[in-house]
Parts: sequence; structure tokens; C-alpha cells
Amino acid sequence: MQLNLQREKPTCNCGVFGIYGSHNASLETYYGLHALQHRGQEACGIVTKSISKKGNPIFSIHKGEGLVTEVFDDHEIFQNKLIGEVAIGHNRYSTTGSAQSIKNIQPFIVNYRLGNLAVAHNGNLTNAREIRQELVNEGSIFQTTSDTEVILHLIARNKLNDQVEQIKEAMQRIEGAFSLVLMTDNKLVAARDPNGFRPLVIGKLHDAYIITSETCAFDILSAEFIREVEPGEIVVIDDEVIQSGLIKSYKISELSSPQKHCIFEYIYFSRPDSFIFGHNVDKMRRRLGKVLARNHPVYNEDEEKVIVISVPDSSNTTALGYQTELEKLGVNCKLEIGLIRSHYIGRTFIQPGQANREIGVKIKFNTVKGVLEGRTVVLVDDSIVRGTTSKQLVKLIRDANPKSIHLRISSSTITHPCFYGMDFPSKEELIAHNFNSDIKAIGKNLGVDSIEYLTIEEMLEAVSEAGKDNFCHACFSGKYPIEVDHHYKKEMYET
Amino acid sequence: MQLNLQREKPTCNCGVFGIYGSHNASLETYYGLHALQHRGQEACGIVTKSISKKGNPIFSIHKGEGLVTEVFDDHEIFQNKLIGEVAIGHNRYSTTGSAQSIKNIQPFIVNYRLGNLAVAHNGNLTNAREIRQELVNEGSIFQTTSDTEVILHLIARNKLNDQVEQIKEAMQRIEGAFSLVLMTDNKLVAARDPNGFRPLVIGKLHDAYIITSETCAFDILSAEFIREVEPGEIVVIDDEVIQSGLIKSYKISELSSPQKHCIFEYIYFSRPDSFIFGHNVDKMRRRLGKVLARNHPVYNEDEEKVIVISVPDSSNTTALGYQTELEKLGVNCKLEIGLIRSHYIGRTFIQPGQANREIGVKIKFNTVKGVLEGRTVVLVDDSIVRGTTSKQLVKLIRDANPKSIHLRISSSTITHPCFYGMDFPSKEELIAHNFNSDIKAIGKNLGVDSIEYLTIEEMLEAVSEAGKDNFCHACFSGKYPIEVDHHYKKEMYET
Amino acid sequence: MQLNLQREKPTCNCGVFGIYGSHNASLETYYGLHALQHRGQEACGIVTKSISKKGNPIFSIHKGEGLVTEVFDDHEIFQNKLIGEVAIGHNRYSTTGSAQSIKNIQPFIVNYRLGNLAVAHNGNLTNAREIRQELVNEGSIFQTTSDTEVILHLIARNKLNDQVEQIKEAMQRIEGAFSLVLMTDNKLVAARDPNGFRPLVIGKLHDAYIITSETCAFDILSAEFIREVEPGEIVVIDDEVIQSGLIKSYKISELSSPQKHCIFEYIYFSRPDSFIFGHNVDKMRRRLGKVLARNHPVYNEDEEKVIVISVPDSSNTTALGYQTELEKLGVNCKLEIGLIRSHYIGRTFIQPGQANREIGVKIKFNTVKGVLEGRTVVLVDDSIVRGTTSKQLVKLIRDANPKSIHLRISSSTITHPCFYGMDFPSKEELIAHNFNSDIKAIGKNLGVDSIEYLTIEEMLEAVSEAGKDNFCHACFSGKYPIEVDHHYKKEMYET
Amino acid sequence: MQLNLQREKPTCNCGVFGIYGSHNASLETYYGLHALQHRGQEACGIVTKSISKKGNPIFSIHKGEGLVTEVFDDHEIFQNKLIGEVAIGHNRYSTTGSAQSIKNIQPFIVNYRLGNLAVAHNGNLTNAREIRQELVNEGSIFQTTSDTEVILHLIARNKLNDQVEQIKEAMQRIEGAFSLVLMTDNKLVAARDPNGFRPLVIGKLHDAYIITSETCAFDILSAEFIREVEPGEIVVIDDEVIQSGLIKSYKISELSSPQKHCIFEYIYFSRPDSFIFGHNVDKMRRRLGKVLARNHPVYNEDEEKVIVISVPDSSNTTALGYQTELEKLGVNCKLEIGLIRSHYIGRTFIQPGQANREIGVKIKFNTVKGVLEGRTVVLVDDSIVRGTTSKQLVKLIRDANPKSIHLRISSSTITHPCFYGMDFPSKEELIAHNFNSDIKAIGKNLGVDSIEYLTIEEMLEAVSEAGKDNFCHACFSGKYPIEVDHHYKKEMYET
Repeated sequence: MQLNLQREKPTCNCGVFGIYGSHNASLETYYGLHALQHRGQEACGIVTKSISKKGNPIFSIHKGEGLVTEVFDDHEIFQNKLIGEVAIGHNRYSTTGSAQSIKNIQPFIVNYRLGNLAVAHNGNLTNAREIRQELVNEGSIFQTTSDTEVILHLIARNKLNDQVEQIKEAMQRIEGAFSLVLMTDNKLVAARDPNGFRPLVIGKLHDAYIITSETCAFDILSAEFIREVEPGEIVVIDDEVIQSGLIKSYKISELSSPQKHCIFEYIYFSRPDSFIFGHNVDKMRRRLGKVLARNHPVYNEDEEKVIVISVPDSSNTTALGYQTELEKLGVNCKLEIGLIRSHYIGRTFIQPGQANREIGVKIKFNTVKGVLEGRTVVLVDDSIVRGTTSKQLVKLIRDANPKSIHLRISSSTITHPCFYGMDFPSKEELIAHNFNSDIKAIGKNLGVDSIEYLTIEEMLEAVSEAGKDNFCHACFSGKYPIEVDHHYKKEMYET
Repeated sequence: MQLNLQREKPTCNCGVFGIYGSHNASLETYYGLHALQHRGQEACGIVTKSISKKGNPIFSIHKGEGLVTEVFDDHEIFQNKLIGEVAIGHNRYSTTGSAQSIKNIQPFIVNYRLGNLAVAHNGNLTNAREIRQELVNEGSIFQTTSDTEVILHLIARNKLNDQVEQIKEAMQRIEGAFSLVLMTDNKLVAARDPNGFRPLVIGKLHDAYIITSETCAFDILSAEFIREVEPGEIVVIDDEVIQSGLIKSYKISELSSPQKHCIFEYIYFSRPDSFIFGHNVDKMRRRLGKVLARNHPVYNEDEEKVIVISVPDSSNTTALGYQTELEKLGVNCKLEIGLIRSHYIGRTFIQPGQANREIGVKIKFNTVKGVLEGRTVVLVDDSIVRGTTSKQLVKLIRDANPKSIHLRISSSTITHPCFYGMDFPSKEELIAHNFNSDIKAIGKNLGVDSIEYLTIEEMLEAVSEAGKDNFCHACFSGKYPIEVDHHYKKEMYET
Repeated sequence: MQLNLQREKPTCNCGVFGIYGSHNASLETYYGLHALQHRGQEACGIVTKSISKKGNPIFSIHKGEGLVTEVFDDHEIFQNKLIGEVAIGHNRYSTTGSAQSIKNIQPFIVNYRLGNLAVAHNGNLTNAREIRQELVNEGSIFQTTSDTEVILHLIARNKLNDQVEQIKEAMQRIEGAFSLVLMTDNKLVAARDPNGFRPLVIGKLHDAYIITSETCAFDILSAEFIREVEPGEIVVIDDEVIQSGLIKSYKISELSSPQKHCIFEYIYFSRPDSFIFGHNVDKMRRRLGKVLARNHPVYNEDEEKVIVISVPDSSNTTALGYQTELEKLGVNCKLEIGLIRSHYIGRTFIQPGQANREIGVKIKFNTVKGVLEGRTVVLVDDSIVRGTTSKQLVKLIRDANPKSIHLRISSSTITHPCFYGMDFPSKEELIAHNFNSDIKAIGKNLGVDSIEYLTIEEMLEAVSEAGKDNFCHACFSGKYPIEVDHHYKKEMYET
Repeated sequence: MQLNLQREKPTCNCGVFGIYGSHNASLETYYGLHALQHRGQEACGIVTKSISKKGNPIFSIHKGEGLVTEVFDDHEIFQNKLIGEVAIGHNRYSTTGSAQSIKNIQPFIVNYRLGNLAVAHNGNLTNAREIRQELVNEGSIFQTTSDTEVILHLIARNKLNDQVEQIKEAMQRIEGAFSLVLMTDNKLVAARDPNGFRPLVIGKLHDAYIITSETCAFDILSAEFIREVEPGEIVVIDDEVIQSGLIKSYKISELSSPQKHCIFEYIYFSRPDSFIFGHNVDKMRRRLGKVLARNHPVYNEDEEKVIVISVPDSSNTTALGYQTELEKLGVNCKLEIGLIRSHYIGRTFIQPGQANREIGVKIKFNTVKGVLEGRTVVLVDDSIVRGTTSKQLVKLIRDANPKSIHLRISSSTITHPCFYGMDFPSKEELIAHNFNSDIKAIGKNLGVDSIEYLTIEEMLEAVSEAGKDNFCHACFSGKYPIEVDHHYKKEMYET
């Protein structure tokens, strides 16, 4: 009976943040997670490490369902509970109401042979299922349904006495996408999978080190960006690193793997003010808009200006790129604000009865009629998943009586599931799947006068500064860089 | 210990909504209040009228502190509690935590000699204090500290037997700004003060009539805009109106008063997609930007493009107007997205320690560095109240290393309090007051390379389509259209 | 779907407590209300008076639904909110979930011409309806459905300038049962109706004065009992009283009225450790048991001892009196613990399905089988209202295989409603009404081997030390000491 | 800042309940846990097993801090969440506020190689620490600090494929006190330690079987008591048992162990209406009172009756036994109700300031003055732990001006900690320890005219029907039936 307004776009599983060596570790993690809120809105948690009077390490945790500002709503949490100079935090994309799912909120903490261990994970392991089965057969007890928990068990069962070595061996066992921060009794450890699916960056705030998903988490803290964690790299921060200023770095494996960054991070997912995969997201997103204009322009009929509008705020940058390029092509066009977005959308909304189905999109958007009436309108959006929202938006714009509506999408048709951490709906819900990627048919269904997507080739051209071959585009192309177990695939489709 | 992030701009007291003759009256009021959320974020409430099995009218209420989506978080409220075909609702700008203030959340309901009566009020009465004193001396018991409650007592004590006449006499007694919706056992009544300080509009949804603050509340419901409630008009909707389609209209007084619309509604307060005071807000706001560009342009130095950016989202439209006009003036300029605004700001935020004072603005905004670095930047904003946020924003932009920062404000310097419903901080907190409206000094204080405001004359010119003399600009000029009691003024300053 | 386990007995409307001149006024009120919890379990509230920095009186309130320990669950309430040296408090018997009913929780506070005024009321006014109508016709606005609110309006509309005189005139207008505590800006005032239906007692704690419903509220505070408030007396405590030690006393009327104490206070309602109506409740209750034994003994069959058991805890004292007297009559008998009562009953319980209807009483009681098996059992109880619980209890005892069960009730058959503050179910739910007071038929229905009630005459004999004519026994006899308006009666029956 | 009113007596760790084969399994568990509420008031939980549409077993859990009626406060829990025909439940004595402790609330559930497994435990393992260390060294990850969790790990790591065999081997490894119920995908299993420290009983409700701590949990359900689980016995209930009516029984070990029932269960802990260790608790408790009277009588001085009172409700039965025996000894005595206990004690109470230290006991008890004044009073209590409450009680009684107060305790002096599940305060807080069991000194400290305890020998004589040698009395004698690890002892003392 409630509309979920956050889920019209795919959601990535999660943002991570770790800090070592700050007096305000937990509060800074809170700000960092707030800056990463777009990576997961449904739950979050922070773990800190402090030292007891007797000198023993103590791990403290606070986590819950909701936005960072909802879960951490009391100053007391930071003053009395989450104390200590080391902290890790996590934003999670999805939990349902059950007790089980509350367990699934990260970070996870365990106490094992060599002490405390906490972990926060962004990504998705593709061989978690088989490792889990193996560990269960050996008597391990799992508390969650999360693939992340296998990492903890792999470390706990490891007979070595060096924790970094234990982590390294665990990293060698797991496959798929992982950008991890781990906290032990005396270290902050980060690891990124050899393909580098998800971003992970290193920064510095005074003497403290931060490792997190995107650089926008540095900006909120006025922290300095140092470098990215390399694909296949394990980074260790401890007291020695603080003193020497030399970050400890290890390789998961001697073998090198091709880089396979998630292209969706550039298209939609990361914040435009972040720097990831070697480039500013804003610049890449603008380039997607430009390539879109160049290959799929909208020309003036008659004398009138073409009006370019974005779906705020996610495609603002792309639309700007599109309009700039279109103008260069000689089209008389103008970027306009044709849609107003409500600032006050919570996570759920009371659903209306049958009489008024359009309320869904109207809760979020309204048109500025004077801008649209009688005009040739180009609506720029970054992607279409189910098409439901797009259809409602088009209807909304149509009610403002434009001359025509031209939809331009700065990515290709989404036709396949993601096994590396992006949360798409099932294949049957993907509009491009349902129309066999027949773009005209999609356009007709959505009710626009014309529609164009970028081709995969065009998309890769737009991001080519970062290397055309360095991207995973499996959700568009079906070409999966890492072999995925068939059982796993089946599970993904079915649940 | 918490930052209040909603209060950097003045807040108007409230949005109102009333509907008569709909099966989904309460749910539609909920959507309407959501569309009016910008008029008040701290509390809200809805009252409905239903008919008992015995045929008696029943008034039901649900209200609380928080956003509409927070207070009305359960479908049950609409299904079982707020039933009936008539409803009124209210968004309120401010309550503090005390039990007393919960009483102050509107709508108010009472039961009096002629039945039930509920009221929701946008505005501020300037003679409430003296009427209240008079009523208390006669034995009336007040439950709230709100000026709105005197309206209820005036009606309850009136000896006439016609409710519309009672309301009319009450309206004749009160002075100041009021856009009211009232609900009786068989009517929806609306009234607007003779000067028309605040907007109030009439719409139709199938057979039902709606009266509300702004037309954006019609759009969310796909309702049709009919006309504005005239200044000094009382409008009555009842079953006869539903059947005849003829809205009943009365005059508060035979004497006519000059129109004195709040110019701040155009500058900042109303939503750009609304139509009020006879015009589209979007158009007026854009004109403010154009007049600002014409009178206070920023020219290119050297060859480089001037970058125009807005403070999202409130000055987006103004910035667009500014850039369009600047281009017409021959300046090589471009509208850019230089600031990213977080979507996930709740009403409060845990405050940092002393070390990091800039966190306040960083929680809300981040710069897109690539856009700003080395550029001549024009930052367009609609108004400056305290200057605190502006100063932090300028610092934030400065960190991105622009060539220069030029602040352009699409209103004049705020130097006086508002007695008609806009909630400014005390005089001592107004930056323009503190610098005696010395604009250069303000600019120096804010850290910009240049700063310009619109003059009052320029501001009025921009909105002249609606009649230069038809606006109240007391907060800029100190010219109050209605004499205000000195005690009242004193109280306003001191509390 | 939930069993309400508190309501098997009639409930009186409320306990009151007021204190003047103590540094811990609110905390002492909290303890006092806890001691009076048996007088009302569904809601409670406390109001305190403190003095602002500018020397103005401030009334602060905290109230809510639930037990005293539930509503006042935070030390902060006493430290920061309910400050000041004067306080009044109230326990309320019943509220339903609606917002309206939260308003009905006492104490009530208003601000009127002569300052603040708070009131807490135990009893029921019989002419509230007509006074209310009169006040409404004159323009008064009522906030609650409570009869107590008319008292506030009578005072607020009074044109005199002496508050005690105002209160006196209000007391002269109202009829029915009232034991009131009122708080003004500089006084604690108490008043008791001329018939003295409900108890009201005065005590002293160091320099402070306390006025409350029962003396057990003094014991918890180690306060000293001084005297009862006389029927028809108004008592005033202010700074002069504190200094002089002379309590100010006024008469509501010069005419004297017959005393009509509620006999149910002795039978069941008051705590056995209280002193009210000039006597110890414990002693009176024991006498009820003794008179019951003398007039309605159970004799031994054969040699075996008769086992006397009580329904714990309410009839413990009565059972002790019964057994003592029975022994004197030469019956070989013994008081035993045959029923164990659970300590952990909250206010509601999840209801079972149809299969197990007896769970209701089993949640609260269990038998000690060894005590009952094969025995002649006398079950002593103080009263029977609906009979539902009695029937289940008898069934429970029967399952323990006694030889026989003899029910003895220390009051008469309840056949009429109470208009003075005791909350019985409707006539149709009273078992004695349904069986036309045919005691044998009742016994058969309940499943006992014999049953006896006290007659009204025997009941009055038992309490004769306090004067046979000084009691109201309308619920048993239908003889109402104060004429009750027919409309009111009808309302009482129907709602 | 809050008084904990539940902890004046030692608390046992927990009550357990399991049911197999009922349509209302969870609701019956709820009632059962309510009947066992005295065994643990601070937290509780229920797990059920249902079958998914695909035929897979599903374990569902609901648990939380508070009384059974507080944690299970919604009918929905039983209708939609805790479905299925098998359930186990647990009442827990103590949790503190941390997240960690919420994890510690039982039952625990895990998923392991052979399926789901849930456990609820009453007792305390004395070798949990060493087993845990061993398991951690092998890579097990523990989620709680509870000794119960080692049982789950022992089973999960067991390589056998028969779950009953796995449980048997786990039982062979653990030492100490345990009365357990376990639930697997198709069985309800119960186990009791070879010494039989804690009770565990088997009952039948229609076709379903119940295994629980005390028989009072059968009474509330009208279930039939079958027999006790034998010390050292493992009982299995599955579908075959339901059909055959033959309970499956296994021995933990072939070796027999001496029975060592906790004598405190008879003295204070179990409910008087329960049957455990082969006898009615009520009868045993009465015998303790009789032996106390015989060995430690109080004689009349002069002619006056001796007044025997209990500390309600826990020593009611004992006081009855004492008075009966005293009368037989020819003493003119009478059982009286001298103390009234409040029904409305929640788990915490706002603490007073320094001025009024006696409030602690007064919140719970008040004296009936008329009963005590001028009398020779015998106060019968079951045990003294810290002595704090006793001292306050004596002071309270003294205020009622008795002639003399004689304290009689139906157990011996408590001087040693319990390692088998009873939760005493640290040795330094035990009054008998502090006064070296000098009874006269204790009496002087408490302020009584005389005091007597039972000797250990007298205590054992009182329970001799169940076998003098069959009891553990370590807390009185320091003779521990099972060797306890020194580290463990130390830990117990220190934490």
C-alpha cells in the first residue's frame, strides 16, 4: 500500500567508508556515509574501535534501517557509544522488515582467534554460494544470508597468525566484485577485486587516513584525495603508516587481470562531483551527453528553439552536455527547467486508489507549463530500467501541451542482470528485454515522438579517456567478464 | 547540538488546503500538503468531516511534528481515521518540542453552539493580541498561543445564527494577513484578507472543489485551476455549490483595500510551477533574473566564458533568467552546474565539533571542481538573510579555485521584520541590517569579488506585470501597508 | 483481539494528589500517584508550577496513557520539565485510543483572566451537561468531553477578582461527586462535595502540605496524616499557610448536607492500608468478612476442616475476617492459599482462539491443587459485577477436585449504575440484574455448591461505626442521594 | 538513576518451553512463558518452525527485552510471523542495554550442515569457557557471550549425520547445569544434565507434547503432566512420537550421577503451584515453614497473640506453614496481612534524591498499621541476600509501632556464589558473608528483636521426602557437586 519512490533506478549494493587515526572517527564516518547516501538508502551502520581502561580493544556498533540521518539521530551515539580513533561504516541498498534482514545490515563484527574483525563490503561475490556450502560442511555457523559473511569465516578459519596474510588468502578465494574495508584490533585494511568493478579511493585528513567508495566523501570532510586503491590491491593502515606516512600495499595475486570498471558508475550511479576510475564523473557524464547529441540530435522544425530539459537531478549534467553539443551542431536550442523535483520525498508514500495512477510520478515531479507549452522538447535521461517512471513522466510533460517530446538516453538498452553489485529488477521487468531492444517500439510504448539510446559502442567512445576496454557493460551486452556459476545465475533470476 | 538545515531561508507560516465533495478527501489533502511542503516543514495536520450512522457530523483529526510523509506514515490513517468527503489540512513552519507547541499544530477544531468548526490559517494577524485580551476578560479560555485561535473564539461568541455571517463578522474584526480555510458541519469556507498578502486559489477535481495556497497542489491531483480567491473575499462551498456549480462569494467589507501581495512569494517562497497573484511564479522569477543581469551584469575579462551558477534548487530559475539576459547583452557566458545538492537532507543533522565549522554547508552542497577551476563565476541567489550560508558557500566555491566569484542577488537588502507571516530572524541577525545595507561591506564580509542586489525599484519593475503598487515590500523598505501595534512590534522583536 | 485484564472489577474515576511547598513536588506527586494507582490505571498526569527568571509563574505538564511508571519513565521529566514547589497529579481509569481521549487525560490546565489554573478531579458531576450547554450558548469553547472542564469555564467566566471566591461560586453551581485539587499561580486549593462521596485527605511532609485521595499516598512519602477534607469544605494552601501552619478553610454552602460516602470504597475500592471516612479500610473490610461469616457461615460436614480461600489480593482481608469469625462460631476451619496470582499481568494480553476460553482467568490465577483437592472450600470475594471472572474461577477451582465450593460475597447484589464516579458496565452486563437478584440462580450459573451475598442491611451494619446512614449504596439499592437528570441517566446507560 | 525492583532476590537463569504438534504452538508457548515469567523477567523470545509452500522448514523468531506481555504485544506476531506447529521459547533473567545483549536473548537459531537448529537453555555450563576457546582456535565464530552458544557449535561441527547422536555427543562434552529444549527441522529435543540441577517436565495437550521448566506452564494451558525429564536423559518428540504416543528417550551417559537438585527452587524460586523434583513446591515450602517454627519458634509474652506475617507474595506459603506449626506448639498466634504489596510495580522506578532513602521498599510495600501496632510480630521470609530490602522492611514495620519484630528465614545463610544458574550478587554484597554468618550480628544490623535462619541440616530435613542427599546447597555450604574451573570461578566473582 505504499509507493517506494527510491527504486525507480537500479541501486548498487552499497557505499563503504573507513578511517584510521582521528579523534572524531565515528562522526567523520557519519558525514562520509551521508556523502555516500546515494549508494544505499535503506540501512547503514558504523563500527568503532576504542581501547578499554585495561588496554583491550573494544568494538562498538550502531546500525539500523533508514538514512544516515535517521539511524544516527542522537549526538549521544557519537559521544558515548561510537568512541575511538578507528571506524568503518556502510550504506546498504536494501533490507526488508524481518529480523533476519536486520542482521544483514553491515558492518559485520566477529570475534575470532586473533581478535575482533569488522567488515563493510561494496559489490557482489560470485562464488560465495559454493564457499559457504564448503564452510557449512566443515561446521561453520552462518548468521546472515549475506555473501559478505563468507569473508569473515574464511579469515576466522585461516591457520596463519598474520592477519594481513589471512585476509590475502581470503581475497584469493573469493570471486566477483568487492571493494572492502576491514577493521582489526590494530589495523584498517582495504581490498579491491582484481577487475576493479567498484571504485575505492584513499584520502587523508590531517594525520588520519580514509578509504572510501567515492571522493565526494573526502570533500564533505575537507580531506585530501591521495589515490585510488588499485584493482587487486590490499592496503593496510596502522600506527606505523600514520608515523611513516607510507601506506602499506599488497597484491592479492601476482597475476594481473583486465580492468572492468562498472560503466553504470559513470552513467548514473556515482555522484558527479566524485573522481573515480581515474576521471571526474561530471566530465564523463557530460561527454555521454555530448556523444548522445552528436549521434542522436533533435533538429528544429520551423524557427522555434528546441527546449532541452533534464530529469532532475540525476541527468542534469548529461542534459547540459547534450544541449552544449546540440548548439555546436547549429541547432537553435536552450537548456530549460521544465521539471521541478520535490525536495521532500521520504522513502515511502501512501499509495492512492485506482482512480489516480499518475500520482506516483507527480509526488516527485511537476512540470513548469510555461516552459513546455507549444515547444519541441528534448527530454534527456541517463537510463531506462522498467520504463514505468519514464512513461509517467512523458504523460506529465504531454499534459503541458508541448509540440513534441523527444527522449534521449545516455546509455544503451538494459537487457541483462548484473552479478557484480548493481540491483536490477528481474529480466521480465526490464522494458528493453520485453521489447527485444526494439527502440521504436519502446518509444511508442512510452508515448514519445522520438526516442534514441546510445549504442554500446557510442557509450564506450564517450568514456574512452578511461580506456574503452576497461569497462564492464554486461547489463547492456550480456558479456560477463567473470564466469558466473549457473546455479548462482538461476538464483539471481528467481529470487 | 544539531544543525537545523531547513532554516537558512525565511519561512512563511504555512500552507493550507481544503477540499469539499470527494470520496478521497483526506488522501487528496495529503497529496496537496505534500505539494505545499515548501511552505512549512515542521508540522502538519488534516481534519476530515464524516457522517455518523445516526447522521451526525464527525470531525476527525490527525496531526504531528514532521514532514507530511512522516506524520502520515500509515495507510490506516486514511482508511479508518480520516474518513469523509470534506477535509482541510495545514503545513506549519515551526514548533518546538513542548506539549504546548503540539497544541499549536493546525488545523484547530472546536465544538461550539452551532456545531463543529475547524480552521487552517496562513498568515499573521496584527491585532490578535488585543482581541485575545478582550476575549479573555470576558471569560474565554485559550488553549494555544496561536493568533489563529482568536478567530475561533470570535465565531463561537457571535450571537448570530448564520455561520457565514458569523465568519464574516469575525473577518471584519481581524487585521493583518490571512488566507484561511474553515470547515463547518456542512460547508467549506475560505477567506483572504483585503490586501491579499498571501495567495489562495480555487480549483476543481471532478465534482469536488479545492481551495489551497498554491496551484502546484492542483497539479499533483490533476485538478483544474479555476480562479484565485479575491483579496477581501469569502468563498463558500457546500452541497448547493456542488450541484449548481456556482461558487458562493461574499465580501468581507464594502470598502476596497489596496492589493499588497508579498513580493517574497515571487522571489523565493512559492514554487516556480505555481500560478499566484495572477501570474506564473516561474516567469516572474525568471524576470527577476533578467532585470538583475541587465542592471548588474558581469562582463568577461579576457576571452574566457563567464560561468553562471545557481544555488540549487531555489535559484535555478533566476540563474537561467540571468544567464539568458547576460548572453543577450553580448557576454560570452554559460549556465553550469557548479554546485551539487544532497537529496538526503533530513530536518536535523548531528553537529560537528569546533574543528570543522564548514561542515554545515558541506552537508548540503558540494562543488563540481572541474566546472569552477580558473573561471569567472557568477553565483546567482535569490536573497540573503543572515549571510551565514552564503559565506560558507563562497568559501566552498573558493576552494575550487575559480578566477573570481561574483554574487548576484535577485532581491533587495532585507532590513526589517515581516508582520504578515514571513518568519525572519531578529533584526540583529540580518546581515544587511548589521552592515547598514552597505553592499560593498557585505560583499567583503562574504568574501566575494563583487556583489550586487536588485534595488527595490528594480525588483518592482521585474514584477510590474502584476502591478508595481500591488506588492508589500516592507521587509526591504520598512513601509508597512497595515499599521502595526507597537506592543506587537516589540513582542516580535523580543521573542 | 486482546483481553483487558484490569476491568473485571468496577473502576472508580480516579485518584488525585496535590502538594504545596516542597523542593521535590513533582517526584513526590509521582510516588503519591503510584500509591493511588489502584484508583485508575489507564492514564495519568502531573502539572507543576515554577517561577520564571522574570518572576512569572509557569505551569508545566506531562501526561500520557499507561501506569505511572510507564508515563513517567525518565528521570529527565522530573529534573528538567516538572520543576517547581507546587504540583498536582491525577490517575485516570479509562481512555480509549483516540486523540480526543488524550485531551481528556487530567490534570487540565488553562490560562484565564486571573492567571493559570489547573485541576484534577475524582468523581462525577451530575449537572455538567446542562451547565455545559449554557456555557456553549454563551460562546465558550470546550476542548474535552470531560465533565471536569465545566469547572474551569465556570471559574474563567466569573467576574469576581478573588480566585477563592470564584472557585466557591463554581462549586455552588456543580452537583454530584467531586474531590478536587486545583492549582492557581499562588495557591493549592482542594474541594470536596457536600455529600462527601469520595475521600479526600490532608497531610504534611516537613513544611509542605499534601491533599490527596487516600492516606496510603502519605505512607509512601513518610508524610503525616492531619485530617480529612470535610464534605462541603474548600481548603486553601498558600505561602501564608506554610508560614502560619493554619490551613485556610471555607464552606461551599451554609446549608448542611447528609454524608453519603461511597460504601464501595470500603468494600473493594480503597487500599486496605488507607484511612478514609474516619476509619481504617482494613478494619472495615475485615468487619465485612466477619458479618458475612456470622450471617452466612459454611459448616463442616463430617470431621474435615473447612478451607477458606480468598481471591488474591483484593479479598485477602475480607477472607481473613471471615475465617476468624467462622472459627469463633466453632467451625473447624483454616485460611489457606488456594489461588496463586501472577505478578506479571500487564494491561492487555493476546487473546486465544476459541479452543481455550478459560485462558482469561488462567493468565491471572492458578490453583494450588494439594490445598483444594477433596476439601470443602469457601471462596470469599468482595463483589460480583458481570460474573464472568467468578465463573471461570469456580471452574478453575473445580478442576482441582474439591469436595464442594461455597462462594461468599462481602457486599450485596449490584443492580444499578453509579452516577457518582464508579464505572460499572451497563445494566445488561450485571449478573445480578440479569438474574433479578435471584441468588440461587446466580450460584447455579456460576457453578458453585452454595452462594451467599451480604444483604444491604448487613453491609451497613458492618460499616456502622462510620454511621449506617452516612453511606451511598445506590448501586445496590437504587436509592440515589442526589437527583439525577433523566437525560444524563439515559446517556450513562447508552454510551 | 532508577531503582531496579525485581532484583532484590536471586534470579535463576531462565525458563524454557517447547511444544510439538499443535496448531497454536506459538500462542501456547506465549502462555507457557507467561506462567514461567517468575524465572526471568528481563527478556524473552519464541521460535517456531513452519513449512514453506515448497515443503522446506522455516524457522521464525520474535524476541526482545521485557516481560512476555511487553515483547509479544501484538496479535499479528502470532497470526503472521510465528506460525507452525512446533515452537520453543525462553524467558531470560538479565540483559543490559547494549546491542550485544540483544544478541544474547534466547532462543538462538542457526542454520548448519543438517538444517536449522534452535536452542533455549536454563542453567549454566561450567566448562563453556574452555570449549569455546578450543572452538575459536579451530575457526568458529561466536556471535554472543552466552555459554549456550557453545552447544550450537559443538553440534554444528559434529561430523555424524544423525542429529540426535550429534546432540548426545554435545551433551557429553558440556558440564554444569542444563535443562535444554532444542528444535530441529523435524524434532523437538530436550536434555537435562545428569545431576538434574534445574527442573524439566513433560506434558501433553491433546495430541501435542510439551517440555518445560515447571508444571505451572501446563496448568495455564489445561495440559496434562506426564512425567519429569530424568537427570541425564535426552527426550525426542517427532511425528512418530505423536503417532505412537511413545516418547523417545536416550541417556547422555551410561554412568549414573548423583541427583543434585537446586534446593533454592523449593525455597523461593519455583512457583508454589508447580510440581518439580517429584513433589509439590507448595507442600515443600510449607514444610520449610513448619520446620522453621519447630526449631525457631516465637513464644507469647503475656497473654497477647503473636502475629505472623509474610513478605507477600513469595513467603506467603512458608508463613502459613510457620503459623500452623506454631499454633500446634501451643502458641496463641494468628496469621495476619501486615504488609500490602503494590500490584503495579514495573521493572524500573525513578529514584528519589537523598532525602528519602526508604522510598525503595515503600514503592513496593506498605504496612497495615492497625494489624501491627503494639503486637509481637513474626516476619517470615524465605531468604536474605543483600539484606537491603529486609532492613528497609523492618524499618517500615517498626514505624507501625509493634511491640517487637522477630525475623524468621526459611533457608540458611547464603555465603557462596552459584555456578549452576542462580544469579547472586558478588560475595561482598551478601550480608551473611559480610557478617561471617554471625546471625545475631545480622539481626542487629537489620534492626530486629530476634532473628533465626534454618540450619542446612534443618533445611534438608524439611525437603527430606525428596531425599536429603539429592540436593545442591552449595550457596549455603560451599560444597559444589561439580568441580568448577578456577578461572571460571574468578570470572564469576569479578564480573
